[in-house]
Amino acid sequence: MNEMAATTDRRLLRGAQTRRTIARHAADVASLEGLNGLSIGRLATDLGLSKSGVQTLFGTKERLQLAAVESAREVFSDQVVRPASQAQGGADRLRALVEHWITYVQIPVFPGGCFWTATLPDFDSRPGPVRDLLADQHSDWLGRIAAELRAAVEAGQIAELDVDLAAFQIDAVLTAANIALRLGRGTAVDQARRVIESLLTPPGREA
Amino acid sequence: MNEMAATTDRRLLRGAQTRRTIARHAADVASLEGLNGLSIGRLATDLGLSKSGVQTLFGTKERLQLAAVESAREVFSDQVVRPASQAQGGADRLRALVEHWITYVQIPVFPGGCFWTATLPDFDSRPGPVRDLLADQHSDWLGRIAAELRAAVEAGQIAELDVDLAAFQIDAVLTAANIALRLGRGTAVDQARRVIESLLTPPGREA
Repeated sequence: MNEMAATTDRRLLRGAQTRRTIARHAADVASLEGLNGLSIGRLATDLGLSKSGVQTLFGTKERLQLAAVESAREVFSDQVVRPASQAQGGADRLRALVEHWITYVQIPVFPGGCFWTATLPDFDSRPGPVRDLLADQHSDWLGRIAAELRAAVEAGQIAELDVDLAAFQIDAVLTAANIALRLGRGTAVDQARRVIESLLTPPGREA
Repeated sequence: MNEMAATTDRRLLRGAQTRRTIARHAADVASLEGLNGLSIGRLATDLGLSKSGVQTLFGTKERLQLAAVESAREVFSDQVVRPASQAQGGADRLRALVEHWITYVQIPVFPGGCFWTATLPDFDSRPGPVRDLLADQHSDWLGRIAAELRAAVEAGQIAELDVDLAAFQIDAVLTAANIALRLGRGTAVDQARRVIESLLTPPGREA
């Protein structure tokens, strides 16, 4: 490493930017290996940084896991929530959320597909701050879907329905589609779309 | 260890029974840690066996993972599929499968809840025999649900429906309920029941 590169490396290591870069890469790794697959040594190697530098920035494995989860939420916000917020609240925004979500797992934005599908099953049985943060984010997502459904009902765009039950269903079929997609069964994406569309019946056409 | 115990240990190690015990314990560990959390050394320690003995029985980590997956299938068969087979084919057996499945994650039979929910997200991006076996078992489960739905339609117990789509939905909401249950949101089990019941509309009452 020449002197300029060494100086740059030191500067970067001190900066918030490096912390973000590491956290973002940690989210990628966790999407494939789970959050327990994260280690400070591995991330340092992947990113060509010193292990002690990464250690200084994060301290413990748990803090690294929390940073990865927070980074994943920012990415999700940029890729799914923010673009959908341009659509009108209610049925339009709900469909936009669903389509941006599908794109997010089809690209895939995280190499392992949906970050929460990949990390919740590992952490759901381990009480602690990582599980709490994942669970809160998952609740926020369910709440966001339910809020758009409620807006759609109130605006008369869709028939009356149990919004929490419908949000549970929408999340369930999207998660199932993500797994199926990773297993090579891409038709599940259209199955998820059909289920979701069936919940968005215009008023007067319901059963 | 006294001489009798040592003799017993050697005999056990040679036997198929020991292999089954190890594979069963490996399925428990994988339900919590994922299949990558398995190691021959760890299983030997947990079960008080010698590492070389376990090594002799399984050889590679992949063979150990495959044995865990096969063991999980046997357990699932004993806890869910076989008891439900006593119910009449069609809607009754489908409801029995669902109820036995819910019991299987509520007990829970595997400490981490549903074995496939815990292991598929980790393995869905890793091509190879373990992924193939998990995916085949998941397809079999979807096929089993679809078959009972088809039987229910043919027997006039439920209204005509797209059986593959309904099977996809049933699996999706059960999986989502399992995750929610692990996160302490037990109401999801009833949400799953309501969604499934809504798919089993008697003929003539459909939308």
